[in-house]
Amino acid sequence: MKNYQVAIIGGGPAGYSAAEKAGKAGLNVILFEKKNLGGVCLNEGCIPTKTLLYSAKIYDKTKDAKRFAVNIENASFDFKRIISRKNKVVRKLVLGVKAKMEEAKVEVVEGEAFLINKNTIRCQDEEYTFDNLLICTGSHTFVPPIPGVDQVDYWTHEDALSTKEQPKSLIVVGGGVIGLEFASFYNSLGTKVTIIEMMDEILPGMDREVVEELRKEYTKKGIEFMLQTKVESLSKKDDLATVTVSKDNEEQSLEAEKVLLSVGRRASIENFGLENLGIERNEKKQVVVNAQLQSSIPTIFVCGDANGKSLLAHTAIREAEVAINTILGKDDSMSYSAIPGIVYTNPEIAGVGKTEEQLQREGITYTKKVIPMTFSGRFVAENEGFNGLCKLLIDEEKDHVLGAHLLGNPASEIITLAAMAIDLKLTTKEWNKIVFPHPTVTEIFKEFL
Amino acid sequence: MKNYQVAIIGGGPAGYSAAEKAGKAGLNVILFEKKNLGGVCLNEGCIPTKTLLYSAKIYDKTKDAKRFAVNIENASFDFKRIISRKNKVVRKLVLGVKAKMEEAKVEVVEGEAFLINKNTIRCQDEEYTFDNLLICTGSHTFVPPIPGVDQVDYWTHEDALSTKEQPKSLIVVGGGVIGLEFASFYNSLGTKVTIIEMMDEILPGMDREVVEELRKEYTKKGIEFMLQTKVESLSKKDDLATVTVSKDNEEQSLEAEKVLLSVGRRASIENFGLENLGIERNEKKQVVVNAQLQSSIPTIFVCGDANGKSLLAHTAIREAEVAINTILGKDDSMSYSAIPGIVYTNPEIAGVGKTEEQLQREGITYTKKVIPMTFSGRFVAENEGFNGLCKLLIDEEKDHVLGAHLLGNPASEIITLAAMAIDLKLTTKEWNKIVFPHPTVTEIFKEFL
Repeated sequence: MKNYQVAIIGGGPAGYSAAEKAGKAGLNVILFEKKNLGGVCLNEGCIPTKTLLYSAKIYDKTKDAKRFAVNIENASFDFKRIISRKNKVVRKLVLGVKAKMEEAKVEVVEGEAFLINKNTIRCQDEEYTFDNLLICTGSHTFVPPIPGVDQVDYWTHEDALSTKEQPKSLIVVGGGVIGLEFASFYNSLGTKVTIIEMMDEILPGMDREVVEELRKEYTKKGIEFMLQTKVESLSKKDDLATVTVSKDNEEQSLEAEKVLLSVGRRASIENFGLENLGIERNEKKQVVVNAQLQSSIPTIFVCGDANGKSLLAHTAIREAEVAINTILGKDDSMSYSAIPGIVYTNPEIAGVGKTEEQLQREGITYTKKVIPMTFSGRFVAENEGFNGLCKLLIDEEKDHVLGAHLLGNPASEIITLAAMAIDLKLTTKEWNKIVFPHPTVTEIFKEFL
Repeated sequence: MKNYQVAIIGGGPAGYSAAEKAGKAGLNVILFEKKNLGGVCLNEGCIPTKTLLYSAKIYDKTKDAKRFAVNIENASFDFKRIISRKNKVVRKLVLGVKAKMEEAKVEVVEGEAFLINKNTIRCQDEEYTFDNLLICTGSHTFVPPIPGVDQVDYWTHEDALSTKEQPKSLIVVGGGVIGLEFASFYNSLGTKVTIIEMMDEILPGMDREVVEELRKEYTKKGIEFMLQTKVESLSKKDDLATVTVSKDNEEQSLEAEKVLLSVGRRASIENFGLENLGIERNEKKQVVVNAQLQSSIPTIFVCGDANGKSLLAHTAIREAEVAINTILGKDDSMSYSAIPGIVYTNPEIAGVGKTEEQLQREGITYTKKVIPMTFSGRFVAENEGFNGLCKLLIDEEKDHVLGAHLLGNPASEIITLAAMAIDLKLTTKEWNKIVFPHPTVTEIFKEFL
């Protein structure tokens, strides 16, 4: 029986990145995937949502084209074709991942893997032995135990991506990233959208000042936000879902064609034998891993959503690299200090490093600088009727950037500059010596430096 | 009579950046501008072109919206309003520069400055003395001495920006950045565009492999490129301009409603008394400056296009900072090793560091890596029928990036990441440790690392 140097369970961003890197480094690698290469990210998450959102963005653009002296008589969209184009994009990228696996000589096994012991997996009645294991099993939607949840034909993000019919009205339970991106998509296409969030602000974990501006923009666009509001129960009435909510002890009932549950995701680390290996877990039942992503059994690594640390594809990709470098005997370790977070609404919002709230909680002294994005000439050239926001949080003493938070396109593409400055611990003086091209939105950072 | 610590001639990017920085540092500053604050860049260059190009981009988008499942029945544009929106954007940004000057307590004098000696300027019959002088007088269009040039009502970039009538046909003489951007704009709006370039490729100075792909794209879009072609003479016939060109000793005549002359720009350093100060010049008659932008008279600095080094606004801005830091006694020096170059065609093209041709000329060993931009999932989500190109040139021994060259949107906004990597001399391993957010076009760099 052939023994593998690296076995990987799960072919999402963590799994396929690790497999490619290990394979290219000459290790023999086997990867188990029970559903689709690419994982949730490629098949049901990041990529499909961005594809849908881009169609919505073009449709948005037709609405305010007049402001740029372009006249459009009749714009409409073909909902079914928006969905089918998304499927086409996903297929193309899944093929790309497959090609990468082949190029890196990774053996891919389709099927559910089960851990027999710390060096053996059983899959489709075959057994496979290995030296090192990467658990890259990802996460799954958490469906909250709301009374009546079973009686309602609720949506998860997968349904919201693949529906053939656009609902006239949609209630989004949970104002996190997934909730906001779908709210943005359906709002652009004309669905009446209501977001219910238990906390006092949407997008917890992102900088509040910037989030507030985003919420105001979407309020103008017609999304209704119900904050500090709890979902008490769900029920069905004719073809509509009824959502009973409470705020300050007052109850209220809302109706909509569809309800999207997006209250969170949980690491998928049960039911494949991991629990039998006696691996150390913390109080949240997450597997404890070190900065090399090793569990208490050092040949078993947990990367990506499965370790519950950040639930972001780009974190997963970097963690996978660190794990494989560790297996290869190269010195590497994971840092979580400069991981960008993005919400692909229109306008986009992005942040990296500490938020102002975090700095306050941690008692760190900081200087805050906030300007509208219209300090960038290119932003003025490409935006009408929206000013955006750019916020930098700086440690004046060390002259370091602590956090950067942006609202305005293309925030997603420029936030990495701030990630580099934070990760490399550049002083603002050093950062300022970089020549930022003119005219770009990127230049906005230079206004602070 | 009040003496100024810093006098600045010219209120373009070099001048206004220097003035703001010096004023904020507490120096007393006087700035002379004979025309409009913001200079060519803001009034007749970078910003107005990007405003026009954005309207064109939206119009372009209406043409292929169907590929993204958005249907548009009738799209048209209002040429006069495209131009008037451009004027509005420029006015807004000029006001922004004015506000910055006021905030930094810079005294702005409208009028033509004349140097009496190395410490005195005369302007509008007043005399002003100063300790340090920044010459930020920019550049002007070079009109080549083509036979018949005086008989034709040719366009410079200023005319091409401000015309009230869209020409049906346009011949662009000179395939540099300015020529390409106007060609792109008028091509998008339906004008028949021909570009005449004397060299064997357009956009000299940019990486040829990437430029070739751009040229192919625009050939598909209907622009005619005539390379290795020399303009022999210009003449007028009825309402049309006739351009006689030659290639391989064969002559040919072309007609068009308008001819744009965009063969280059020259530093504006004559006719304001500089020639009387005996400052050292090189064989090209450019003022010789050191890495602090000081001329042979150390209190006289030359920044921006006026020194003829790079003719880019962002170079000017950085040079101005270096000059003011030098005046403030802060250690700083100008580096030209990582200055991005961008052409805002659609798709955009951008590069930083060395081109492959430069490396070959300089005999530097390099490894070349080229991939289509479609290796980025977001690029696939947002582009149909176009693959783009990303090229990295790497010094394998030192593990440094030597050059990065991109074709595909938003190249302009992501090239700065490569500029940072080159300027900071990161190894690719160090660069790879940065967490690039997913899914972004930015991630494309990570494919190489």
